[in-house]
Amino acid sequence: MRERLVAMMNPAAGAASRSKIKDMSAEVVDNNPYSRLMALQRMGVVENYERIRDYSVAIVGIGGVGSVAAEMLTRCGIGRLLLYDYDTVELANMNRLFFRPEQVGMTKTDAAVQTLSGINPDVVLESYSLNITTVKGFETFLASLKAQSSHERSTGVNLVLSCVDNYEARMVVNQACNELGQTWMESGVSEDAVSGHIQLLVPGETACFACAPPLVVASGVDERTLKREGVCAASLPTTMGVVAGLLVQNALKYLLNFGQVSRYLGYNSLKDYFPAMEMRPNPQCSNPACVLRQKEYMESKPARDAAAKTKMEAEASTENECPVHLDNEWNISVVDDETETSSIRNTPDILPEGLVRELPDADSYAGPAAPVSSSAIDDDDDLEELQRQLDALNAS
Amino acid sequence: MRERLVAMMNPAAGAASRSKIKDMSAEVVDNNPYSRLMALQRMGVVENYERIRDYSVAIVGIGGVGSVAAEMLTRCGIGRLLLYDYDTVELANMNRLFFRPEQVGMTKTDAAVQTLSGINPDVVLESYSLNITTVKGFETFLASLKAQSSHERSTGVNLVLSCVDNYEARMVVNQACNELGQTWMESGVSEDAVSGHIQLLVPGETACFACAPPLVVASGVDERTLKREGVCAASLPTTMGVVAGLLVQNALKYLLNFGQVSRYLGYNSLKDYFPAMEMRPNPQCSNPACVLRQKEYMESKPARDAAAKTKMEAEASTENECPVHLDNEWNISVVDDETETSSIRNTPDILPEGLVRELPDADSYAGPAAPVSSSAIDDDDDLEELQRQLDALNAS
Repeated sequence: MRERLVAMMNPAAGAASRSKIKDMSAEVVDNNPYSRLMALQRMGVVENYERIRDYSVAIVGIGGVGSVAAEMLTRCGIGRLLLYDYDTVELANMNRLFFRPEQVGMTKTDAAVQTLSGINPDVVLESYSLNITTVKGFETFLASLKAQSSHERSTGVNLVLSCVDNYEARMVVNQACNELGQTWMESGVSEDAVSGHIQLLVPGETACFACAPPLVVASGVDERTLKREGVCAASLPTTMGVVAGLLVQNALKYLLNFGQVSRYLGYNSLKDYFPAMEMRPNPQCSNPACVLRQKEYMESKPARDAAAKTKMEAEASTENECPVHLDNEWNISVVDDETETSSIRNTPDILPEGLVRELPDADSYAGPAAPVSSSAIDDDDDLEELQRQLDALNAS
Repeated sequence: MRERLVAMMNPAAGAASRSKIKDMSAEVVDNNPYSRLMALQRMGVVENYERIRDYSVAIVGIGGVGSVAAEMLTRCGIGRLLLYDYDTVELANMNRLFFRPEQVGMTKTDAAVQTLSGINPDVVLESYSLNITTVKGFETFLASLKAQSSHERSTGVNLVLSCVDNYEARMVVNQACNELGQTWMESGVSEDAVSGHIQLLVPGETACFACAPPLVVASGVDERTLKREGVCAASLPTTMGVVAGLLVQNALKYLLNFGQVSRYLGYNSLKDYFPAMEMRPNPQCSNPACVLRQKEYMESKPARDAAAKTKMEAEASTENECPVHLDNEWNISVVDDETETSSIRNTPDILPEGLVRELPDADSYAGPAAPVSSSAIDDDDDLEELQRQLDALNAS
């Protein structure tokens, strides 16, 4: 597991094939790469599209979902992208979008920077070829999320996108984001390649990844055929492309303040079914940083209520001047229900149709310095109970 | 409008960076580009994945949706792809996936062949740089769909994917597919970039594109800001990536016989809402070829019923031998309701929530030799009625 930091790199192999553009223009000419994005303002979808240049997004895991998410954000003209992965490109990855056969052998982060800098030289790319689940990797990961960027005045990142393919790495991203109070979005694709999900996690406000066993979309495929020892997971460019698209769409809505940001959205491709739900934080969460963020969130309620009221009043008074305006329901809906912190953790029966718990419980996880052992995840009794739930769901 | 046919080309610029592979293998090794696809068999999702090599798919329109659809099918190892477009690559296309700045000025079909042949040299690529809405272009289009391929014993294509961005081109694809009795899938993305849809069209069995005014997903954005004269449409790589993913996923389900093939699936990205519905053919359809296909479909009902019965009995008897097996509900559901050919054309009130008619009526269209005039589409009275419907929907 190499741990190599390549910051602000623009390798010669990925030399830009267009020159940098100082300001985004809405001018409708063939040689303007931003005209169709700036048109979102004229169409009344986004109030200020160019603000996207002020934002930094970290993508953890540059595989089938993360690489496509990175390309989408790059083509949208995001200000700064931080890319984390420790793996190298193989021909076995060619059944998903993004990487090309001639990149086999390169680290995924280097190959991504090569391709992305050629597509849009305006985006500042930071590439971290490291494993965040090691102690040293976690330290570098945490430091990079907090670091001052040469790109902008503000420190830190605006959003973290988790595109990793395993439980341990998700728990590490969860730990880092809980410690930093950093909003993040999680994504996943099933081992049978036919379902996936995205989820928004706001420390203190929504369930964290340790508050309850992770939710996955039931595919209807017999789960007994999955997860055999040494069996290679299936994957499809379609499922991963859809999940990456839904993830980055949610990220754009969150960053640019339009539409409704989804809390949890599942994708069952066999039935084209998209279950949605919300998850409140668990006051008994095993993650101390999560409990601390929950306490802060409760304490800041009066200030949030006042800000929301001021904003709503300001919008009401300017409504006649701006006839085309979309309320961001995410930002103004915080006044309701928030004193109630009940968790759905102990009531699995209220899950929407088509969603199941991936793992029985997350309590045993103790943070990145002492990663969960595989024996804890493979607890026989819990897995048997989970299997019964899955069987019941598949039989229905 | 150039009309240039470039068949079976593999330009030097897109020289393959891996050698061709004779048979797909499920072996789990890093240098096998098909291991994660062949794993779909072991997972019980697909019965015979390698059959994908026998199939030919035509993609009309190699823009934001069509290019990504082509890349997905190429990475899945489709047998043969036929690509149709008359446009060239511009920097203004760079806000969507696939094309790269160094391809500016190339025809979209040539640029696509360059990229796709580099990704997977096993796929036979046919590139048609022509405009299907001209008389000569339509003739070439029709002939190419029927032609014997050097790739396989069978003639013709197995599926046509329409990824064009205008009504006239969709009506031309509809005309060709009705004439040939060719199953096709239509796709579209709204001008405000935040919604889209896919639709399955089986001549004689489902509504054709002329049976009823096209359905689009209501985005909630004020439609009065859209479709102003000379205003450039907005587009996002996210929405187009999701629509391409849903489209190719539906194509894979149709070709490889797994899951449920969607008839109509909408995508409202502002609310992450996915309306679904079915549309029966209109016995009074203005397209004579559609009416002929409807008649044939009715007449073949007894043979279809017998085949379905035989298939169900065969599956029932082998069920114990193959515990992991997904019924293809699409293929075995034809015994119900099919004698009823009522159309939803004259009952717009039964549309599912979030769907609206894009145009008031399609009757005025007379085939590719006499394309519909813009004045027919812009009929003031009909548009006013449509505007009232849209306003009511947006206000709700």
